[in-house]
Amino acid sequence: MEPAMDLGQTARVRPLVEQVRQMVREEIAPLDAEYHAEVGRHPSGDRFAMTERQLEILASLKDKAKARGLWNFWLTDSDKGYGLSTVEYAYLAEEMGAVTIAPEIFNCNAPDTGNMEVLERYGTQAQKDRWLPGLMEGRTRSAYLMTEPDVASSDAVQISLKCERDGEDYVLNGEKYWATGAGDPRCSLYIVMTRSDPDAPKHSRHTMLFVPADTPGIEVLRPMQVFGHDDAPHGHMHIRFTDVRVPLDAVVLGEGRGFEVAQGRLGPGRIHHCMRAIGRAEYALELACKRALGREAFGKPLADLGANYDIIANARIEIEMTRLLCLKAAWMMDHAGVRAAQPWISKIKVQAPLMALKVVDEAMQIFGATGISQDTPLAGIWTDLRTLRFADGPDAVHRRQVARAELRKYTNAAP
Amino acid sequence: MEPAMDLGQTARVRPLVEQVRQMVREEIAPLDAEYHAEVGRHPSGDRFAMTERQLEILASLKDKAKARGLWNFWLTDSDKGYGLSTVEYAYLAEEMGAVTIAPEIFNCNAPDTGNMEVLERYGTQAQKDRWLPGLMEGRTRSAYLMTEPDVASSDAVQISLKCERDGEDYVLNGEKYWATGAGDPRCSLYIVMTRSDPDAPKHSRHTMLFVPADTPGIEVLRPMQVFGHDDAPHGHMHIRFTDVRVPLDAVVLGEGRGFEVAQGRLGPGRIHHCMRAIGRAEYALELACKRALGREAFGKPLADLGANYDIIANARIEIEMTRLLCLKAAWMMDHAGVRAAQPWISKIKVQAPLMALKVVDEAMQIFGATGISQDTPLAGIWTDLRTLRFADGPDAVHRRQVARAELRKYTNAAP
Amino acid sequence: MEPAMDLGQTARVRPLVEQVRQMVREEIAPLDAEYHAEVGRHPSGDRFAMTERQLEILASLKDKAKARGLWNFWLTDSDKGYGLSTVEYAYLAEEMGAVTIAPEIFNCNAPDTGNMEVLERYGTQAQKDRWLPGLMEGRTRSAYLMTEPDVASSDAVQISLKCERDGEDYVLNGEKYWATGAGDPRCSLYIVMTRSDPDAPKHSRHTMLFVPADTPGIEVLRPMQVFGHDDAPHGHMHIRFTDVRVPLDAVVLGEGRGFEVAQGRLGPGRIHHCMRAIGRAEYALELACKRALGREAFGKPLADLGANYDIIANARIEIEMTRLLCLKAAWMMDHAGVRAAQPWISKIKVQAPLMALKVVDEAMQIFGATGISQDTPLAGIWTDLRTLRFADGPDAVHRRQVARAELRKYTNAAP
Amino acid sequence: MEPAMDLGQTARVRPLVEQVRQMVREEIAPLDAEYHAEVGRHPSGDRFAMTERQLEILASLKDKAKARGLWNFWLTDSDKGYGLSTVEYAYLAEEMGAVTIAPEIFNCNAPDTGNMEVLERYGTQAQKDRWLPGLMEGRTRSAYLMTEPDVASSDAVQISLKCERDGEDYVLNGEKYWATGAGDPRCSLYIVMTRSDPDAPKHSRHTMLFVPADTPGIEVLRPMQVFGHDDAPHGHMHIRFTDVRVPLDAVVLGEGRGFEVAQGRLGPGRIHHCMRAIGRAEYALELACKRALGREAFGKPLADLGANYDIIANARIEIEMTRLLCLKAAWMMDHAGVRAAQPWISKIKVQAPLMALKVVDEAMQIFGATGISQDTPLAGIWTDLRTLRFADGPDAVHRRQVARAELRKYTNAAP
Repeated sequence: MEPAMDLGQTARVRPLVEQVRQMVREEIAPLDAEYHAEVGRHPSGDRFAMTERQLEILASLKDKAKARGLWNFWLTDSDKGYGLSTVEYAYLAEEMGAVTIAPEIFNCNAPDTGNMEVLERYGTQAQKDRWLPGLMEGRTRSAYLMTEPDVASSDAVQISLKCERDGEDYVLNGEKYWATGAGDPRCSLYIVMTRSDPDAPKHSRHTMLFVPADTPGIEVLRPMQVFGHDDAPHGHMHIRFTDVRVPLDAVVLGEGRGFEVAQGRLGPGRIHHCMRAIGRAEYALELACKRALGREAFGKPLADLGANYDIIANARIEIEMTRLLCLKAAWMMDHAGVRAAQPWISKIKVQAPLMALKVVDEAMQIFGATGISQDTPLAGIWTDLRTLRFADGPDAVHRRQVARAELRKYTNAAP
Repeated sequence: MEPAMDLGQTARVRPLVEQVRQMVREEIAPLDAEYHAEVGRHPSGDRFAMTERQLEILASLKDKAKARGLWNFWLTDSDKGYGLSTVEYAYLAEEMGAVTIAPEIFNCNAPDTGNMEVLERYGTQAQKDRWLPGLMEGRTRSAYLMTEPDVASSDAVQISLKCERDGEDYVLNGEKYWATGAGDPRCSLYIVMTRSDPDAPKHSRHTMLFVPADTPGIEVLRPMQVFGHDDAPHGHMHIRFTDVRVPLDAVVLGEGRGFEVAQGRLGPGRIHHCMRAIGRAEYALELACKRALGREAFGKPLADLGANYDIIANARIEIEMTRLLCLKAAWMMDHAGVRAAQPWISKIKVQAPLMALKVVDEAMQIFGATGISQDTPLAGIWTDLRTLRFADGPDAVHRRQVARAELRKYTNAAP
Repeated sequence: MEPAMDLGQTARVRPLVEQVRQMVREEIAPLDAEYHAEVGRHPSGDRFAMTERQLEILASLKDKAKARGLWNFWLTDSDKGYGLSTVEYAYLAEEMGAVTIAPEIFNCNAPDTGNMEVLERYGTQAQKDRWLPGLMEGRTRSAYLMTEPDVASSDAVQISLKCERDGEDYVLNGEKYWATGAGDPRCSLYIVMTRSDPDAPKHSRHTMLFVPADTPGIEVLRPMQVFGHDDAPHGHMHIRFTDVRVPLDAVVLGEGRGFEVAQGRLGPGRIHHCMRAIGRAEYALELACKRALGREAFGKPLADLGANYDIIANARIEIEMTRLLCLKAAWMMDHAGVRAAQPWISKIKVQAPLMALKVVDEAMQIFGATGISQDTPLAGIWTDLRTLRFADGPDAVHRRQVARAELRKYTNAAP
Repeated sequence: MEPAMDLGQTARVRPLVEQVRQMVREEIAPLDAEYHAEVGRHPSGDRFAMTERQLEILASLKDKAKARGLWNFWLTDSDKGYGLSTVEYAYLAEEMGAVTIAPEIFNCNAPDTGNMEVLERYGTQAQKDRWLPGLMEGRTRSAYLMTEPDVASSDAVQISLKCERDGEDYVLNGEKYWATGAGDPRCSLYIVMTRSDPDAPKHSRHTMLFVPADTPGIEVLRPMQVFGHDDAPHGHMHIRFTDVRVPLDAVVLGEGRGFEVAQGRLGPGRIHHCMRAIGRAEYALELACKRALGREAFGKPLADLGANYDIIANARIEIEMTRLLCLKAAWMMDHAGVRAAQPWISKIKVQAPLMALKVVDEAMQIFGATGISQDTPLAGIWTDLRTLRFADGPDAVHRRQVARAELRKYTNAAP
C-alpha cells in the first residue's frame, strides 16, 4: 500500500519545531549580530581567525542545544538520533534558516551535513572513525571542493583537478574555488572531486577523496567575495593544490565513482538550502508587514498605500506554494528514493531561491533605504540567498533537468 | 490529536481518479467536439435550444457514468454517495477539467454543485423535495444570480435587485447578468441574491431566494459574450426581473441572511474551479510537449530551440505548486472549516487561473498560429480560464483578503 | 553630416494625424460595430459574402477619406502621394490602429500595403499595370500566401509548396494557410511563396509569384479561426493548390529570389503592425482610466483601490517606451536602410504586441467581466493582438535575431 | 513652430561623447580599482580619510579632463561652459556611468551637480561667491541633507528637522541620514532641508539652508551601509544637529520656500542618475555577451544554451527603450520646462533602475558565481543601482505621480 502523502508536521516533530524556533528567536538571534561584529577583531587582525568571544558564543549555544537534545537532526532515516524523515527535518531547517549562525548551533549547517552524509553513506569504517566524531560533535568543520575557476560549473564533467596515482599515493594538482567553510580555522577535512582518468567514459572519469586540510601543498589563495563580503570566518575559499599527496585509502567509494558520490550527496542538502530560504522569506515578510503597519505616509500606514496589499498577498501565496513544493520533494526523497526525487529537487532548487529573493527585495523596498542598510538584516539575507542561484548548479541547469524529465514522458528517446 | 496533512490520493479515491480519467479521455473527449458543433443546429436556429443529438450525447454518457457509480462526487463530507473529502474530490475535479462537458457528465458541474450544496445545507425539507431530485439525477439545471450590471462585483454589499414584501409574496425588481447556465433550456431554478432591506446593517441587507426560472416577469435579455462567444447552450445570461412574485417560503435560510448563504456556498466551488483549471493547464502542457517534440525548425525539434526548456520547466514547477496549494486549501476546508479555509481559498483563487492562463498561453505560442486556431483546443481553454479571474470575485479582492489576513497577525485592530 | 534623430511629428504630418484621429473617432468608429454586425447577413448566409450595407459603409467612408486626401499614406519615401517618411507614417498608423476597419478606409490596411510595396518595388511594368490600379484605388484586395500547414513558420526555408516549370507555365501544388484577407470577395491577387528548386542553395530555393485568385485549381478549404472567430469577411484562409498554372511572367523579381522579396516586404509592414498595436494599447488605457474613475467599490473609485495606480503607471511607461522604440525603428528604416533596420524591427516585433496585450489584459481586469464581454471592444482587441505574436515570425525567432546581432559585436564568427 | 524632437547625438556632442568614452575606458577604469583598494589604508585607519594615492589619482585624472575641456558638462542651457542641452548631456552621463569614479573626474558627480545647480539658480551673489568656485573647480564637495530617520521619505512634508529663529541666527536641531558624499573629507557644504514653521500651509513649512559642514553642533554619527558597504570615502552619513547656528543669510531663496528649491533641484539629477544606470546596464550586457561567447558547457558556448538568446535579446530591447525614454524626458526638460517634464522624470525614475538591475542580475547569472564575486564589477554595480529605487523618491511614489497625471486627463477634479 502506498504511504499517505503527509506533508504536515508530525506529532513527533511539532515540539522540536517549537523548541528550535524559540531558541533561534530568543537565544541565538541576539548573539548573531555580536558574533558577526567580532569578525576581524582577532589580535592578529586576520578576519578568518576566530576570537575568544566568537568561540564562546558558539560553544555556549551549542552546549545548550546539545543538552536539550536539539542536535544533528539532519540524520534522517537513520537509527542514530531522531531518525527524522526528510519532511520532518524540512520544518526544522526552515526555522534554523532565519538566523545566520543558527544551523551551526544545532550542528545542521552546510556543507558539514552533506559531508557527514558522505562519510555515513560511503565511508569505510576507518574513514568514519577518523572524521565523523569531530564533525558529529560539532568540534571540527569540513569543506566540499567541487567548483573550479576554469570550468563552467553547470557542466561538472569538465572538472579537471588532476589526480594521478604514484605508488601508494594519489598526487593532486589544480585549483578549486568557492570552497564554502574552508576559511574556518576549525575546518580539518576537504572532500575533493578530482579527475583521475580523462580517457574513461564520461561519468567514470572522476574520483572523490578525503583530504586533510593541512596536507602539504595545499594553499588557500584568497576568499571569494559575495557582493564584496568575504563571509569570514566561514568563507568561500580559492585553493591551490600543488603535488598534494594522499594515500590510496583516502578514496571515497572507489576510483572513478566520484559522480556517484556527488549525486547521492546533493539531494538532501538542496532541500535544506531551500527550506532555510523559505525561513528567510517568512522572516522578511514579517518585518515588512510590521513596517507597513508602523510607518505612515500621506496620513496612512504604508500598508494601505501603493500596491502594498498586492505585494504582501503575492509574497504570502508564493511562500506557501514554495514550502509545499519543498515538502513534496522531501516526501519524494523519503518515499521514492533519491533518483525519483531528483526532478523534484531541481524544481525547488529553481523556485525557492527565486521566490525568497523576490520577497526579500519587496521587503527592502517597503522599508525604504533602511531596508538595504545595517538597520535591518534584509540586505545580508538577500546577498546570501543570491548565492543559492548558483550553488549546487545554476537555475538553468535545473530547469533543463525538469524540462527533460517532462519531455521524456512523451518520447522513448530522451530529447 | 491533529490530523495528518495528507494531500495525496487515498486508496479510496485512486481507482475513481483512474476511472474518471479514462472515461474523460476515451469516451467524453471524442464527443465533446461533436456536442459543440451541434450548437445552433436546432431546427429553430436558436443557439440555446438543444438538438436531439446534444441531448443524446449527454444522456448516453451520463448513463454510463451513473452505471459505473461515477456520480455526484461533490457531495463531500456527507453520508450520501461516496462522502469524499474535499481533497479527494479535488483530484477528481482536476481530471474532469480537461474537457468542457466532462463535469456535467459526472453531475459535478458549476454552478449546479454549489447550488445543490445550498439546498443540502440551507434548504427546508420542502425546498429540498422540490428541487434536489432533478438536480441530483442530472435532469434539470440551475443558475446562481448574483452579479448586477450597475454594481462593482468586487463589492457585493452594493447588490441592489429589489426584494419587497407584499402580503404573502416577495416582489422582485431589477437586473442580473453573467448568470451562468441560465441559457440552458433545462435550467429550472434560479438562486437569486436580492436586497431586502437597504437600511439594515451592511451584512444583513440581503436575502437569497429560490426562484423558479419560469416565473412570470422574468425576461432573459441576452447572453453575455466571453471573447465574442455566447457559450451556448449553457450561456451567461442577462436577466431582467419585473414584478416577479415568489412566496415567502422561497427564502433561503432567512431574511437578511443572504451573505451567510453566499459565504457558505463559495468555498468548495472555488476549489473545484481551481482544480479544473489545473487539469486544463496539465492538458495544455501535454499538448505543448508533444508539439515541441514533433515539429522541427532549423533542423532541430522545437523543444531544443529558444527558451523552450525554460518555458516547459517553469510550467511544470508552477503547476505542481499550484496543485499543492489547492490541495492544502481543500485540506483546510476538510479539517479547519470554511472560515479558516477562507484565506487559503483566496490564495488559490488568485493563483490557479493566473498560472493556468500563463501555461496555456505558452502552449499556444509553442504551437504557432495553430495554437489559437480551431485545430487545437487551446484558445477555447484560454478564454474559459480568463473568466475565472472575475468569477466569484476578481483577483484584486482576493489579494486584499490575503493581505488583510497577513497583516492581522501583527495588529489587533484590523488594518 | 548625419541626419538628426527626429522622432517627433513633423509640421507636415501633424495636421494629417489630427484629421485621421478625428475621422477615426468620429466617423469610422460609430460604423465599425455596424459593419461587424452585418457579417453573416448576406442573403446567401455566406459569412464571407459582403452585404450591401457593408459595401456601402466602406464606400462612403473611403470616398470621404479620398476626398480629404487621407489616402495611401503608406507610400513612404516616394514621389507619389505624400511621400511621408516611415516615422511620419508611424504616427498615422497608430491613429488608425484604434478601430478595426479604419486602416482600410485610408487604404492602409495589411496585407495590401505590403503587397502594393512588392508591386511597386519589384513588379514589372506589366505587373504593375495589371494589379496596382485596383489596389491603389481601394477597389480590390490581395493576400500574401506564405505559411504552410506542415512547416514551422519560424523556419521559412522549409516552405515547400511545389512550383515546377512545365513549358511556358509554372505548375503549383501544395497548401497554404493563414492567408489573411483571402476570404474577402474582393480579393483578386495572391502573392505566393513557392519552392521552385529544392536542391538550390538554401536561400535560392524559393520563388515568389503573382497568382490571380480565380485561377483554376485554387480551392479555399476553410477559414482559420482566431480564438473561435473566422474574422469574416476578411478571413485567414486555408487554401489548396492543385495543378495551378501561371505563366512564366507571373514571377516576382526572378526565379529563386523569393527570399529577397520576402525580406524587402517585411520591414515596413511590421512597423505598421506595431504602431497599430500601440494605438490599441492607448485606446485600452483610456477606457480603463475612465472606468477606474467612474465606477465605485468600497466607497472609492476603482482607481484608488488595489494596485490600480501601479497598473496605470506601468501601462503608461510601457506604452511610451514602446512607441519610442517603434519610432526609432522607423527612423532607422528611413535613414539607414532595411538591412540596418532589421534588428530594430525584430525588437519592436517582440515588444509591441507583448506590451499591448498586457495593457489590454489589465484594462479588461479593471472592467471586471464587462471587459471580456460584448459591452467593450477589449476582448476583440486582445484576440487580434494575440495573432501578432505569430504573424511575420514568432517572438522566439525575433529574439534570436536580436541576440545574434548583439553577440556578433563581440565575435567575427557569427555564433 | 514646435522644435523637432531630436533625440540623437548632435554634431557638437558626438566628439565629446567619444572623448569621454575613451577616457573612461582607457584612463579612468584602470585606476578605479586601485582607488577603491586604497580605502581604509590611511595611516589613521579611518576609512573616510583619503590616502595620498587616492588624492593623486583624482587630481591627475581631473587635470587631464580639465585640460581637454571635458569639465562641468552638467551646466546645461547655460552661457557658461558648453551650454549643452539636457539631451546632449544625457549621452555623456551614460558614458560616465560605467565606472564608479568617472563622474567626479569630469566634475559631474551627484550630489554636487544638483547642489551647484541650486547655487546657480537660487543662490545670492554672496552665496555663490562663497561656495561655487571650490565646487566648480572640483576642489571641494557638498552634500544634500533631506532624508530623516523617523520620516517616510516618500512623504517629504513630514520632514521635521527643527529650524527656529533666534535673533540673527537660525538654530537647527534634529537628525538627517543618507547624506550621500558627507563622508568625504573634502565635503565643506551641506544643503539642509528644515522645518521652519510647522503651522504654515503644507508646502510652506520648510526652509532650505546652506550650512558649512564644520559648523559646531554638527556630529556625524555613522555611515549608513548599502548591502554592508560604507561606500567610503564618499559615504551616506547619519548626522545629528544639536543647536547648530547659521546666520539668516544662509537661507536658500527664502523662508518657507524649501519645497520650491527641492522641486527645481530634482529634475536634471534624476535624468543623470537614470542615464548612468543605462551606462551600467550596457556595460553589464557587454560583459555577459563576452562571457557567453567565451565559456563552454556541454560542448557549446553558454550563449547557445538555456534561454540565453532570449535573455540577451530582452536586455537589448529593454536598454534601448529605456534610453529613448530618458532622452525623451531630457528633451521635455529642454523644451517644455521642469513642470511639464515632471511625469516623464517619474517614468524614467521607475523604469531605468529596475531595467538596469534586471540586466545586471541576468549578467551575474550568466557568469555563474564569478558574477557575484570580486572577479567582476557586477555585484558592486548591482548594489549601487539598488539604492536608486529609493533615492529621490521610491518607485511607488513615482508610479503614483504617473498614474495621477494619467487620470487627470479624464477628470477635472484630480483623483
